Amino acid sequence: MTGTTVLMLSYDGSGFAGFARQPGLSTVQGEVEAALQTALRREVLTVGAGRTDAGVHALGQAMSFPSMKADPERRQLIRSLNALTPHAITVTGVRYADPEFSARHSAVSREYRYRIVPGSVPPLFIAPYVWSVPHALDLGAMREAATHIIGEHDFRSFCVAESARGRRTIRRLDVIDVTPEIVLGEHSITVRIVGNAFLHSMVRTIVGSLVEVGVGRHEPGWMAEALGARERAAAGQKAPARGLTLWHVGYPDECWL
Amino acid sequence: MTGTTVLMLSYDGSGFAGFARQPGLSTVQGEVEAALQTALRREVLTVGAGRTDAGVHALGQAMSFPSMKADPERRQLIRSLNALTPHAITVTGVRYADPEFSARHSAVSREYRYRIVPGSVPPLFIAPYVWSVPHALDLGAMREAATHIIGEHDFRSFCVAESARGRRTIRRLDVIDVTPEIVLGEHSITVRIVGNAFLHSMVRTIVGSLVEVGVGRHEPGWMAEALGARERAAAGQKAPARGLTLWHVGYPDECWL
Repeated sequence: MTGTTVLMLSYDGSGFAGFARQPGLSTVQGEVEAALQTALRREVLTVGAGRTDAGVHALGQAMSFPSMKADPERRQLIRSLNALTPHAITVTGVRYADPEFSARHSAVSREYRYRIVPGSVPPLFIAPYVWSVPHALDLGAMREAATHIIGEHDFRSFCVAESARGRRTIRRLDVIDVTPEIVLGEHSITVRIVGNAFLHSMVRTIVGSLVEVGVGRHEPGWMAEALGARERAAAGQKAPARGLTLWHVGYPDECWL
Repeated sequence: MTGTTVLMLSYDGSGFAGFARQPGLSTVQGEVEAALQTALRREVLTVGAGRTDAGVHALGQAMSFPSMKADPERRQLIRSLNALTPHAITVTGVRYADPEFSARHSAVSREYRYRIVPGSVPPLFIAPYVWSVPHALDLGAMREAATHIIGEHDFRSFCVAESARGRRTIRRLDVIDVTPEIVLGEHSITVRIVGNAFLHSMVRTIVGSLVEVGVGRHEPGWMAEALGARERAAAGQKAPARGLTLWHVGYPDECWL
């Protein structure tokens, strides 16, 4: 072992049972590890930066594994993996780091984007990547609601209750933007969320809660109450998986060899 | 008959044998006419603004047919047609015009957009809507080539030879932009083409020729020679259908009731 190889990859999560390997199911990690085994002629266990749920997409997921001297060089590895993995997975880059690097633990920030199409005309070209909400959304109210959860907080209200039990649930949110965006000619609203790390279902529960404010079910200030309650029942419904994309994982520049 | 009803619609052309109705094949016009027959309880023959080829998409196609007094009102008609047509067709709006209006003959401009993803990493999220060209493209050269065909010209070199025989092949091109665009996080190049009307395969042959300049097979000035030759063999290959979208059809404002 001479160091760590880091794969950067995109995937359309629609057809996978999530990121994390699971016996007998097609998962992103499972498919990439199978391709690595063929390409590198050895068994490879990877670490992913974010364990995305079934149906969640990624533009900039990162996966790391220990390098070996005989491994193919960067371009050859990208070409092999793109030939060996399903079409819905694209390896976009390869980087190299020290042996102690971990795609998960070395990450200093994660950016997610959640895309919503509001209104009665359903989306067409971007349908697999959005949540179609058949109502108008009040962007001003959603933005005001978002300000209440920026910063370092206990986000227990916004994560799966079982996963929070006995665990540290304090995280830091740096950015929540709510921005109209035309994609392939279709009108959408993108919620961009950047933080140091996220709890299970945290992004989707934040987005679901913001949409409850956007449709007028709650006032923006309710978001602060939901945060303060520190129990899952206080926040809104979880938004569907299909609208969510793990956009980018940030690492310190000095990681890269 | 009291006037003309005009449908505005989007479709993903991947699964259709083109726009124009054909016995025994699933086409956009055929599917919309079948839905209209159910929704309006009468046989309806429509006229389309652009007869897009198999695999070509539309964001802003228009179709017209004679109105009847008993027809459902706008919102009800949109709802019914979206319930009755395949998922890949979305009716986005309905407008009304005088009896002599024709979606085809009343149109004063058409805008097409063609999307290309250059380079060795294939596109993922936007794959059904792009031409993946495994080379770098010289945008400056493509833009210079485009300037040679702006304006009113005989575009015989850029259309299917059989369809030009004995027909008028003069058309007016108002705009050709070649612009980098990031769509769902993926890098693409969009060629936007606006003109009064287009010959069969004209947009795809123009784009195919521009790409031959972009990869360095020809100098930009070759585009002027190809135009001047007035024969199909002088221009480049036709670009694939999947990258093309009929973006917008322009009508004089005074058309609408």
